[in-house]
Amino acid sequence: MKIAILGGTGEQGPGLALRWALAGEEVIIGSRQREKGEKVAIELNQELGKELIRGTDNVTAAAEADVIVMTVPYSAHIGTLESVQEQCKGKIFVDVSVPLDSENARRVTIPAAGSASEEAQQILGPEVKVVCALQNISAHLLREVKAEIDCDVLVCGDKDARPTVIQLVNKIGGGIRAISAGPLEAARQIEPITALLIRLNILNKVHSAGIRITGLPEK
Amino acid sequence: MKIAILGGTGEQGPGLALRWALAGEEVIIGSRQREKGEKVAIELNQELGKELIRGTDNVTAAAEADVIVMTVPYSAHIGTLESVQEQCKGKIFVDVSVPLDSENARRVTIPAAGSASEEAQQILGPEVKVVCALQNISAHLLREVKAEIDCDVLVCGDKDARPTVIQLVNKIGGGIRAISAGPLEAARQIEPITALLIRLNILNKVHSAGIRITGLPEK
Repeated sequence: MKIAILGGTGEQGPGLALRWALAGEEVIIGSRQREKGEKVAIELNQELGKELIRGTDNVTAAAEADVIVMTVPYSAHIGTLESVQEQCKGKIFVDVSVPLDSENARRVTIPAAGSASEEAQQILGPEVKVVCALQNISAHLLREVKAEIDCDVLVCGDKDARPTVIQLVNKIGGGIRAISAGPLEAARQIEPITALLIRLNILNKVHSAGIRITGLPEK
Repeated sequence: MKIAILGGTGEQGPGLALRWALAGEEVIIGSRQREKGEKVAIELNQELGKELIRGTDNVTAAAEADVIVMTVPYSAHIGTLESVQEQCKGKIFVDVSVPLDSENARRVTIPAAGSASEEAQQILGPEVKVVCALQNISAHLLREVKAEIDCDVLVCGDKDARPTVIQLVNKIGGGIRAISAGPLEAARQIEPITALLIRLNILNKVHSAGIRITGLPEK
């Protein structure tokens, strides 16, 4: 599958790109500036020792991909969505954003839509299959491609797209488990968990806090 | 320690009462109606085969206790707080409430204060040490006093009172682990997790969903 990672030069993008590339997916890193996307792709390919990742601008990346994953900081949420609206039509769009308070990442500023993912759906329109996922993974552990990640990923949103996203999440490896969490409005509870984990990281001087959901039936 | 459980005849009260009584704590169940509190205490003592739990009305229970734990449904939140304001002065108050939507428990209606626990602090005033805890435990597992509960309890709020509440939470047993989560405003992220767990319970046809926090240093 061809995956675009918009804002892919940021905190979570490189880890996702490396892990998906190693799992055999075709990855295109997008950035606001094409040169930055290209540069990071070159660096990641050097780390891999193979040419597996391409880099370009966000709009080109979105246009070429089957699945578009967005990992921009919340301050760039609306602007990036508006810039790729046309390129997302008919595709699966995975929003990894969390509306963290720009002054204090232990806080969330709840968007009028209820969550960042619901805001994405509003902006992209009904022709785009929006799914919320991957907010609560430690970017630090994600980036160390051989690190175990003791964390579940709650996946909610478009019913038809959800199974594809669950498969992609499970391909990240390292012990990550995707859990289906129903319609997009569950993002209202899923996204804020990131602020809690950032708080626990700060309190405990670590970068690795995560969550596991317990008490569910074995699949 | 003398613990009052206000709204103690509801979903979570009996399980907490039994488990704390078995751990050697003195438990007083409070109810809006004294007779109901007394009746449930008699039933729980029969189950224990010992007279360990007393039952009375909420106001008397709060007046007699050192630590007051409130487990009322959110519709009774403000009313119950106002009724015990005097009796809570100088004491530790543990708010277990979640502002679940009364029409749909998979949703949260966020109070103006930011969370139910912050609303409790506003109503009770600065002389009461408010702590948020125990929202995310399965009431079903709590009630089966021998059941293992694979769940962490996030405890946030008054800095001086937090260690006492953490100790009390750990005394519930069954594998529960209390985790300190900073000041009361962390309740904004902790309380909504209950709505997510209710959603996962419904989706998976279980009553046992819980969360564990991973990636923290061993104590």
